[in-house]
Amino acid sequence: MLVTTHLFIPGPTKIPEAVRSAMDIRMEDMRSPEFPKFTLPLFEDVKKAFKLTNGRVFLFPSSGTGAWESAISNTLNRGDKVLMSRFGQFSLLWVDMAQRLGLNVQVLDEEWGTGVPVEKYAEILTADKNHEIKAVFATHNETATGVTSDIAGLRKALNDAKHPALLFVDGVSSVGCIDFRMEEWGVDCCVSGSQKGFMLPTGLGILAVSNKALEAAKTSKMERCYFSFEDMIKNNDNGYFPYTPATQLLRGLRASLDLLLGEGLDNVFARHHRLAEGVRKAVGAWGLKLCAKDPKWHSDTVSAILVPEGVDSAQVVKTAFYRYNLSFGVGLNKVAGKVFRIGHLGALDEVMIGGALFGAEMAMRDCGIDVVPGSGSGAAAEYFRSTTKASATSRAEPKLRLAS
Amino acid sequence: MLVTTHLFIPGPTKIPEAVRSAMDIRMEDMRSPEFPKFTLPLFEDVKKAFKLTNGRVFLFPSSGTGAWESAISNTLNRGDKVLMSRFGQFSLLWVDMAQRLGLNVQVLDEEWGTGVPVEKYAEILTADKNHEIKAVFATHNETATGVTSDIAGLRKALNDAKHPALLFVDGVSSVGCIDFRMEEWGVDCCVSGSQKGFMLPTGLGILAVSNKALEAAKTSKMERCYFSFEDMIKNNDNGYFPYTPATQLLRGLRASLDLLLGEGLDNVFARHHRLAEGVRKAVGAWGLKLCAKDPKWHSDTVSAILVPEGVDSAQVVKTAFYRYNLSFGVGLNKVAGKVFRIGHLGALDEVMIGGALFGAEMAMRDCGIDVVPGSGSGAAAEYFRSTTKASATSRAEPKLRLAS
Amino acid sequence: MLVTTHLFIPGPTKIPEAVRSAMDIRMEDMRSPEFPKFTLPLFEDVKKAFKLTNGRVFLFPSSGTGAWESAISNTLNRGDKVLMSRFGQFSLLWVDMAQRLGLNVQVLDEEWGTGVPVEKYAEILTADKNHEIKAVFATHNETATGVTSDIAGLRKALNDAKHPALLFVDGVSSVGCIDFRMEEWGVDCCVSGSQKGFMLPTGLGILAVSNKALEAAKTSKMERCYFSFEDMIKNNDNGYFPYTPATQLLRGLRASLDLLLGEGLDNVFARHHRLAEGVRKAVGAWGLKLCAKDPKWHSDTVSAILVPEGVDSAQVVKTAFYRYNLSFGVGLNKVAGKVFRIGHLGALDEVMIGGALFGAEMAMRDCGIDVVPGSGSGAAAEYFRSTTKASATSRAEPKLRLAS
Amino acid sequence: MLVTTHLFIPGPTKIPEAVRSAMDIRMEDMRSPEFPKFTLPLFEDVKKAFKLTNGRVFLFPSSGTGAWESAISNTLNRGDKVLMSRFGQFSLLWVDMAQRLGLNVQVLDEEWGTGVPVEKYAEILTADKNHEIKAVFATHNETATGVTSDIAGLRKALNDAKHPALLFVDGVSSVGCIDFRMEEWGVDCCVSGSQKGFMLPTGLGILAVSNKALEAAKTSKMERCYFSFEDMIKNNDNGYFPYTPATQLLRGLRASLDLLLGEGLDNVFARHHRLAEGVRKAVGAWGLKLCAKDPKWHSDTVSAILVPEGVDSAQVVKTAFYRYNLSFGVGLNKVAGKVFRIGHLGALDEVMIGGALFGAEMAMRDCGIDVVPGSGSGAAAEYFRSTTKASATSRAEPKLRLAS
Repeated sequence: MLVTTHLFIPGPTKIPEAVRSAMDIRMEDMRSPEFPKFTLPLFEDVKKAFKLTNGRVFLFPSSGTGAWESAISNTLNRGDKVLMSRFGQFSLLWVDMAQRLGLNVQVLDEEWGTGVPVEKYAEILTADKNHEIKAVFATHNETATGVTSDIAGLRKALNDAKHPALLFVDGVSSVGCIDFRMEEWGVDCCVSGSQKGFMLPTGLGILAVSNKALEAAKTSKMERCYFSFEDMIKNNDNGYFPYTPATQLLRGLRASLDLLLGEGLDNVFARHHRLAEGVRKAVGAWGLKLCAKDPKWHSDTVSAILVPEGVDSAQVVKTAFYRYNLSFGVGLNKVAGKVFRIGHLGALDEVMIGGALFGAEMAMRDCGIDVVPGSGSGAAAEYFRSTTKASATSRAEPKLRLAS
Repeated sequence: MLVTTHLFIPGPTKIPEAVRSAMDIRMEDMRSPEFPKFTLPLFEDVKKAFKLTNGRVFLFPSSGTGAWESAISNTLNRGDKVLMSRFGQFSLLWVDMAQRLGLNVQVLDEEWGTGVPVEKYAEILTADKNHEIKAVFATHNETATGVTSDIAGLRKALNDAKHPALLFVDGVSSVGCIDFRMEEWGVDCCVSGSQKGFMLPTGLGILAVSNKALEAAKTSKMERCYFSFEDMIKNNDNGYFPYTPATQLLRGLRASLDLLLGEGLDNVFARHHRLAEGVRKAVGAWGLKLCAKDPKWHSDTVSAILVPEGVDSAQVVKTAFYRYNLSFGVGLNKVAGKVFRIGHLGALDEVMIGGALFGAEMAMRDCGIDVVPGSGSGAAAEYFRSTTKASATSRAEPKLRLAS
Repeated sequence: MLVTTHLFIPGPTKIPEAVRSAMDIRMEDMRSPEFPKFTLPLFEDVKKAFKLTNGRVFLFPSSGTGAWESAISNTLNRGDKVLMSRFGQFSLLWVDMAQRLGLNVQVLDEEWGTGVPVEKYAEILTADKNHEIKAVFATHNETATGVTSDIAGLRKALNDAKHPALLFVDGVSSVGCIDFRMEEWGVDCCVSGSQKGFMLPTGLGILAVSNKALEAAKTSKMERCYFSFEDMIKNNDNGYFPYTPATQLLRGLRASLDLLLGEGLDNVFARHHRLAEGVRKAVGAWGLKLCAKDPKWHSDTVSAILVPEGVDSAQVVKTAFYRYNLSFGVGLNKVAGKVFRIGHLGALDEVMIGGALFGAEMAMRDCGIDVVPGSGSGAAAEYFRSTTKASATSRAEPKLRLAS
Repeated sequence: MLVTTHLFIPGPTKIPEAVRSAMDIRMEDMRSPEFPKFTLPLFEDVKKAFKLTNGRVFLFPSSGTGAWESAISNTLNRGDKVLMSRFGQFSLLWVDMAQRLGLNVQVLDEEWGTGVPVEKYAEILTADKNHEIKAVFATHNETATGVTSDIAGLRKALNDAKHPALLFVDGVSSVGCIDFRMEEWGVDCCVSGSQKGFMLPTGLGILAVSNKALEAAKTSKMERCYFSFEDMIKNNDNGYFPYTPATQLLRGLRASLDLLLGEGLDNVFARHHRLAEGVRKAVGAWGLKLCAKDPKWHSDTVSAILVPEGVDSAQVVKTAFYRYNLSFGVGLNKVAGKVFRIGHLGALDEVMIGGALFGAEMAMRDCGIDVVPGSGSGAAAEYFRSTTKASATSRAEPKLRLAS
């Protein structure tokens, strides 16, 4: 292809040039005496991305799924009762993993398009006087439906119930994009991966753990080896790893953190919110609806857009891909054929969102969805114009002579 | 910047990944015995990009301006009478060079927004019975105003007048983008550069010359050294260069030619035309006019858009740059403040054009130009939808279930 | 550093430019309809690198250690009896993992510097009439001591004993470097990783499995999820993955396989052998000994060189690193302080080996090892001169006028 | 090739990773309002590399040859008398250019292997009472023979003769490698190029000029356009260029200057001297001689090594290239067949020099030159060991336990 396919899936995301450059390197010796000077500060800075000051992070050569497995297998025991909810493909897969790893999962099945049912969790936790529930799981951002859940609320529910259960959060598509406060919210394990807000290729399972979770790991008896906290800790403490780490991605992660922390996390979140809101203005102007049932569930990293009855959303995605060199996310599982997804996370700006909306309009119209040409682009553009502000993707403005 | 500024100037253009990769290399020995195996076929393939089978090409480490100088200083003599026309910043600069190099230039000043006045050339050539005019110059694509001229018509004028003058063409922003037929049109020197249709960084002056021009070079007495045909020929014939060549760009040029010739030049031209036409549809929908006075002058590589009275086009460019991370071309010289330019050459596709139009609409509205939000995007999108066809930026379509 | 540290550890290895380039890319959609056109042939070609025609390969985002875990957890059951041997840091770690994952390991502790004790295995297998041993493990190339073991002999031992145990081989530092014939030798699981013979960054656990092992996986009851064969098979069969794959490394792997298979595996092995032999000639000329006790154990990917009594090998490595910008491998565990290791695998040629020997001589002399300056280099050079032959790192020779 | 050919020619040189990375970029707008913030400090820092505080530098998209032409055509007039000397291929070519551009050249032909005959210059200048000589030319480092000349001495000769002639120096292969003090030595035009000490690909002609030369340019009447000071000055003063600059190389130059100035020029010179001296130790140990007739002519950027009678040096180069993947420089013109050249400038360290010597020994012995295997490597290594010192290619040493 003369032009690389434009990527608007909810991860992997576009890689900033500085990160790409940081990874285009010759290999290095991961046992060199200078290596810890690189890794020890890196570990500290990864923690900052989770807003964590205590605890620690683990960087596994794996996908986020591996970090899920690590969280479970290091802190719990087979047969442990845990509370989970399922309202999209990724929360569903996490439940599946928990069951396969031998946990006794109490699953709350929620409508797809909604998120973590905080009130139900509160009730169950309050009722669990004997503290049989060892851990509570929540998918912060369900990538399949574009739904963000209320983790602060969940912490409050645990606190109100004075429940000691561990709190596990899937932050794969939220950390580095959507406000996430690990320490303030008392999250014990937060799972993330390199290919979303960290704007890297897939290949690092990033797991942040609280001191409470580290304590739990000392008594957990589940078999583990590759994903073992213990082996990692012993080596990480000296700046090394129990097996060859993915140094290329670690170098990329350094560059990514420099960007994220340099910009300021709250600015990163505001930037994501603004671009997401632009997409939502377009969806509104098209006369379409999001899969997310209510504004409170709106995700700032991905919008799952419901296509009208009679249209197969997979055809929209296929048309965009083959005809306009544009990758959107398909609908998965229960929402297959019903939604297509525009990922709007990572290194993006208004012009790129404009291009994605332009392509979406063409593909939708090709597939018989009668949106008004230019309506989505126009609405997004007007929103962006009304909310301009210096950001990591614009320049400090000199005096511009603008029309008032 | 988190996101590299989107480049929609009429060169340098975006570099395809394959070309970028071909240039990201370690250095090589330009005197190695294997080097000619690379250069000799390269010279032949560069000729193909000009549709030239005879003659030869010269690849100078220089910009296109250097290739201009080479063309003049190798084939003419100081005091030679030449016929030129001036209707934009680049034709103007070429006249300036010709004068400074000591030519006796008969200049036709044409309105900016028009192009080479073929009829006037015809008259003058017919009247020049003694063949005092040694060369006729034409700027194929005037980048400053977005005007393409009729080179085939100029050849006809020369032929009709049975005039032996050399025909020099500035193809800097046309070769590899707009139909150009060096041999068929009897062009003697065609100047181009690496950073336009060849989709490379600036740094190669690319000069194609006919056998007639090579013959003229044998008697030309102008001093020259760096840009000498003779030195080049002696070394190029063996696959080498008279001084260290820009091997990195030559490797990039190889990749670029593989893309251009692989796609087929006529497909390349059609692709440029379609994207340009999309931009023109947007301009129409905005209710604006191009600098080009008549459709016959429309350039498929750059559109110079006239802003309404009272608006300073430089502010549109500045706003796009600072606020939306988007580079457009400013108005130069006589059209400064009056036009802004959207470059649409090189490795582009519909989605990128959509992004550029999106940004243009925002910047124009910010500057008080009252275009209807989404109008340009919508018009371009509908045009693209109505003209889809497999190209270098789309995929061979499987059966898509499209609305009829 | 002005010059990147020269890497002569036994992995990660130097990355060929073609592979580096293949990984320096923008991200892609791992669910695109075109993705299987890339992955399905890739799976087949990975099998070729193992000389496997049946069975299948799994490509995990992990290190080789993850692939070890996958092999065990998918094919065996907790409590299963397995036969292993331990004679270096990596065979030791594999035993440790097997024990931690709940296997009942019969360990043969061998002297470091020797390898898999085929005769002892033969005896034990012959004695195991009830076939209690479910699997036999062998480290093909022990990276810590530079010892290569006889896998063909082990297969013969199994066959002679008519023993049905699975045969597991750690090929992390042998596959793609040293003759390995998975199918001919009846290996059931062969573990490898991206950062050795495949000349990629760390990040892919590459596991090749026989049909027999795939059959065993159907009845194994060990909990697994991330490293599950079943999930992989279900998705791989269609060209996809159960979770986001490391597409960047997969693209690099494509380039790496193109190089390896293009050169021909047997040529790859011969090239490694010749370079290794050059290093061994140098060691001999220095008057030093290898950790490998006997030529039959000599590894063609890494040489562990014993330093004289009274010298700390770690100081040699440190001096080379700090003073001469050169990374060698340290001695690990039982051979800490006693050996330093020169990795000679992957994309290397004579000149690079010459540089490594040059640096080794300087560092050794700095540390009081009284090798004759130039002795190692001279011996290696003479060996290389006497064995020249066109290879992937030399050119088809034109007629050279050489001294006879 | 699996391994990129090792480059030991006297330019292009190896590109440091930081420089390579700085050039692996997307294109930018050379007319953007932010561009001068990049170029203006760049111009100042380039001057520092020449040890120039007044005057200015010009950065042409060209090779160094173009900068030669610029120096002459902007400051002199046709027919001007100039004094030059010729003692190698590059000083010879400069004379040729001066003659072709119409200067009246008084040429001193010196033995190849010697350099600028300062005493003869002194005599001639003293005798030139009428100051007919307008400019004195000197090749600081003659790349063809590995000879460095005494520019300070030349300045003294001019001063002693109270002669106002301009002093032109070819510093193509000295600037950034060998001590060069433009201001202190009163050099008026110093020509350099990107592909030597600046460690970039070919493509920038770098010309530093004194205020005196700038003054001379105001009255010079030679025709010029592409290489015009005047056009450059007018645009450079605002941070722009008269035609599209080679932005990719300018970005690389920024990175290169950061390395050179960060290291400190005097450290850069010391580093080059030490590596060159190591090569010379090897040449001595081989029992061979340099083309440079006397130690005072020794070049720290390239060694031209004389092969024994009866051996064709071109065969050594060819053998190294085809058989050992190693590029040396051939002998040019008068020394063709007699010398081969090892370039030792730019981003090199001891290990790389060791590799080059290793390859040279093999190729020489293949061609019948009876050097003792390992003799050159051994001598260089001992020299390097005896002169270790922290540099840009080694690390600040921790306490190493070295043998005393």
